Amino acid sequence: MRTNSHSNLKILAFDVFGTVVDWHSGIAREVRALRPTVDGEMFALAWRDGYQPAMRRVMSGELGWTLIDDLHRLILEQILGQFGIADLSESEKHHLNKAWHRLDPWPDVVSGLTRLKSRFTICTLSNGNIGLLADMAKHGGLPWDCILSAEVFRAYKPDPATYLGVAKVFDVTPAEVMLVAAHQDDLAAARACGLQTAYVERSAEFGAAHPKDISPHKDNNWHAQDFLSLADQLGC
Amino acid sequence: MRTNSHSNLKILAFDVFGTVVDWHSGIAREVRALRPTVDGEMFALAWRDGYQPAMRRVMSGELGWTLIDDLHRLILEQILGQFGIADLSESEKHHLNKAWHRLDPWPDVVSGLTRLKSRFTICTLSNGNIGLLADMAKHGGLPWDCILSAEVFRAYKPDPATYLGVAKVFDVTPAEVMLVAAHQDDLAAARACGLQTAYVERSAEFGAAHPKDISPHKDNNWHAQDFLSLADQLGC
Repeated sequence: MRTNSHSNLKILAFDVFGTVVDWHSGIAREVRALRPTVDGEMFALAWRDGYQPAMRRVMSGELGWTLIDDLHRLILEQILGQFGIADLSESEKHHLNKAWHRLDPWPDVVSGLTRLKSRFTICTLSNGNIGLLADMAKHGGLPWDCILSAEVFRAYKPDPATYLGVAKVFDVTPAEVMLVAAHQDDLAAARACGLQTAYVERSAEFGAAHPKDISPHKDNNWHAQDFLSLADQLGC
Repeated sequence: MRTNSHSNLKILAFDVFGTVVDWHSGIAREVRALRPTVDGEMFALAWRDGYQPAMRRVMSGELGWTLIDDLHRLILEQILGQFGIADLSESEKHHLNKAWHRLDPWPDVVSGLTRLKSRFTICTLSNGNIGLLADMAKHGGLPWDCILSAEVFRAYKPDPATYLGVAKVFDVTPAEVMLVAAHQDDLAAARACGLQTAYVERSAEFGAAHPKDISPHKDNNWHAQDFLSLADQLGC
């Protein structure tokens, strides 16, 4: 762990999917509500698995700039057949695609963010589109000071334009911004841009049956079990 | 007044300067705090008067895309001499320029927005930059669901891209969005894009000594004395 100091910290930027909200059980629940015979957990994993390849198609230029809502829909169309539910109606597909707007936060999130907000400006930094993140905040009562998104910067994480964009929006130095995320690769990219970083354990991100590696990484400034622990460590 | 219906209304987008916050007395107070001999009210009017011409320089292409923070600074440099305070230090100028981030809301705003938020998604739609609007929200306790700005759309109001941009962000029709503003020209431009419109009286926008015309305009869907009256009318 690097030497920690939060005396110069002003902005906390949060990764969202996995870090703030539990996409795995939310998606599983919603697909089972539509078609009870589907293995909801496998469906959630398959949908999320399509995310990185789809985003790479945008970043390579094969697809033009595309909102996550539209990428989610592309992937959905690809996996429906695999799960034997290609017969979903257009309105069912539209409803299911919006399940990403209705994901629930992890249990510590609202009280943790409320404490962190008392001392810092708290914002999202997600590849999710603005409307999705705003709907999710309203659904879950997430008290963001500001919603920042790939849509604002016209670039997806891990493009440096996103991490540096947060500092630019708030007219602060990169070192005055900290990325909070449950993913080491996201944090590494932020660190390369000069941001501080905090890792948050979300061992059940891929379901309780598939606990993920939550080992500390020495280059993060902070390592927290959850947002309450992060608030403790930051003196909030 | 047009036939009113709020059954299909989902998003309330608010103009900010003048509608939500009292820029006139806020700017007057801050410049007097720096140099008590300055006529703060005239200074505030002069600074705001430079806004439309500066924005036209951006819209005409004479200036590249410029954040309001930077336009405010350009105008500030132009008027300091007229008020005999060209001797302000760089840090005083920087501090004064950020006075726009510290403007207070009108007295009805926080309770009005809180009521309106219970039924609608409430967001800003301002030419102010995102960082300015987020700082202002934190300063004044403004409970926005989302901060939308010219900076998101890379266009200033009254460009249709801004009004239609709100509908696009939230994946709704223009008629499901209402602009709330204290300026008839802003409302007219929104109406031309198919948005609903609500006029809010802010007779003291330019100072109590210069009450402005607050006559109703027949084409607005709603006309409200303040945000509490708007909440009453919308059944919140």
